[in-house]
Amino acid sequence: MADLVIADVTVNKKASVYFDGKCISHGVTFPDGTKKSVGVILPASLTFNTGAPEIMEIVDGACKVRLKGTEEWVAYAAGSEFKVPGDSSFDIEVSETVHYVCHFG
Amino acid sequence: MADLVIADVTVNKKASVYFDGKCISHGVTFPDGTKKSVGVILPASLTFNTGAPEIMEIVDGACKVRLKGTEEWVAYAAGSEFKVPGDSSFDIEVSETVHYVCHFG
Repeated sequence: MADLVIADVTVNKKASVYFDGKCISHGVTFPDGTKKSVGVILPASLTFNTGAPEIMEIVDGACKVRLKGTEEWVAYAAGSEFKVPGDSSFDIEVSETVHYVCHFG
Repeated sequence: MADLVIADVTVNKKASVYFDGKCISHGVTFPDGTKKSVGVILPASLTFNTGAPEIMEIVDGACKVRLKGTEEWVAYAAGSEFKVPGDSSFDIEVSETVHYVCHFG
């Protein structure tokens, strides 16, 4: 089972709020400068754009994801993850509130 | 100006989701075991109950607050804070999405 916490980080007091609050994330920074974010996506159908490549670690909840350029919707639940290329996008359908950690790069 | 980050903490990957997502908070733990939370309250009128006494540090946004047992609504904005006794409650009207740090005890 994956860790339920991220240790030894600095957390931003101010969150990023996307899609009228359907997605809220707090940035965290590791001692080596690595940045990740912890966040929540409420039940909704949304499209996220990526700058850097991302690994989305699903901590809780359930969703289906379709990466840009693909036809297939793939289901993800707690304990799974998916990778998104940089300068791309993905569609997500959240059926149960998703708690995630976004790893960049 | 208050710090924009909280350093040297462990952050919970899973958030607490209140009021159908109108309030989302992530718990953080300091090396000495002290717990706080960082969160967001979207525009809404809500009532929060307290267990332990709390200090609500408003990092961003705007709201009015009425503590249990009082008649007066008091406005708070970025950089301000208010104290709530334990085993009590407060009404909050959020006009601009509030980003907060909740300090317990």
